[in-house]
Amino acid sequence: MKHHRQELWFTIPGRRGFRNITGQVQEAVDTSEVRNGLCLVNAMHITASVFINDDERGLHADYERWLEELAPHAPISQYQHNCTGEDNGDAHLKRQVMGREVVVAITDGRLDFGPWEQIFYGEFDGGRRKRLLVKIIGE
Amino acid sequence: MKHHRQELWFTIPGRRGFRNITGQVQEAVDTSEVRNGLCLVNAMHITASVFINDDERGLHADYERWLEELAPHAPISQYQHNCTGEDNGDAHLKRQVMGREVVVAITDGRLDFGPWEQIFYGEFDGGRRKRLLVKIIGE
Amino acid sequence: MKHHRQELWFTIPGRRGFRNITGQVQEAVDTSEVRNGLCLVNAMHITASVFINDDERGLHADYERWLEELAPHAPISQYQHNCTGEDNGDAHLKRQVMGREVVVAITDGRLDFGPWEQIFYGEFDGGRRKRLLVKIIGE
Repeated sequence: MKHHRQELWFTIPGRRGFRNITGQVQEAVDTSEVRNGLCLVNAMHITASVFINDDERGLHADYERWLEELAPHAPISQYQHNCTGEDNGDAHLKRQVMGREVVVAITDGRLDFGPWEQIFYGEFDGGRRKRLLVKIIGE
Repeated sequence: MKHHRQELWFTIPGRRGFRNITGQVQEAVDTSEVRNGLCLVNAMHITASVFINDDERGLHADYERWLEELAPHAPISQYQHNCTGEDNGDAHLKRQVMGREVVVAITDGRLDFGPWEQIFYGEFDGGRRKRLLVKIIGE
Repeated sequence: MKHHRQELWFTIPGRRGFRNITGQVQEAVDTSEVRNGLCLVNAMHITASVFINDDERGLHADYERWLEELAPHAPISQYQHNCTGEDNGDAHLKRQVMGREVVVAITDGRLDFGPWEQIFYGEFDGGRRKRLLVKIIGE
């Protein structure tokens, strides 16, 4: 069994944003030399997500609006978590809707995807360097 | 390490629906001859889900109503994604709530489940042939 | 390839509650003697979750309030599932938001976590003994 570990670092300038990381994850698969196996990609921060969906600007605007409806950022006093001095209570909720991680099959050395599947890093409390983990096992 | 890959194809006649795929996934485990390992089951389309819950008709009606409240289909103009000519903006949101994938343990050649766990394909933009992926690794 | 399986049992006294299980999952990793691999942790019941977030009391209160807004327990008659004689329709919905499972990388024998990641069992229909599964594969 082979295994490979890699961190990817990002700074999303605003509070929230999505970045397509599919190419970087495929590069990690290439480096691993795993032909068949599983690839875990997870946020290492608890106010960020990794998810799979479409790389379409309108959809990302829809996610932004919808997540703000489900768990609004302001007023920050609505979240007990913010009594700790944080202002990111909403980000911990948004991340649960979008998910912490994805597990992707590797087949013949490629991420085994349907035609529109793309992997995104979803940031809900940006403005600083944060990272995610890629862990690959297989043979 | 053994590995096995299989696609399952479905046509859900209406726009939305749930189908119990537990038996088909267990058949894939049987074919793999893996006795202990992990089984990934994921939608290959981004307007569909794979999730684990109860096979109970009332619950599925509750999911249908609740998801329509959280992310209504109409009016389709409320989603920027639909400016591309699609009418499935809501389906991309519903799929995030229900999830893209499940990872299930395989123990002694069986899906290692609690008493009520069943795997479902959840369709939110049906009416055409769509598929999911089963990828199994183990020994 | 090594593999290891372990159940963890809990009784959450009230209807809902969160319990930090990170230490117990690390103990399962220690027992497995896996140095590099993947660790699946999933609820075996369909009204409970396993998720990763912060061990902060205010945040947990925020989750409790927010999940009650998204899928209120009462009136129980709002859920068709409760026509079966159950009163836990809401718990099946809350569990979808928080998730059934997490997959965690194992690196050098440790759960490969960012600084604030902690694993929680989330109970939405408590008051009785329930269990979760830890399945580890790797080498």
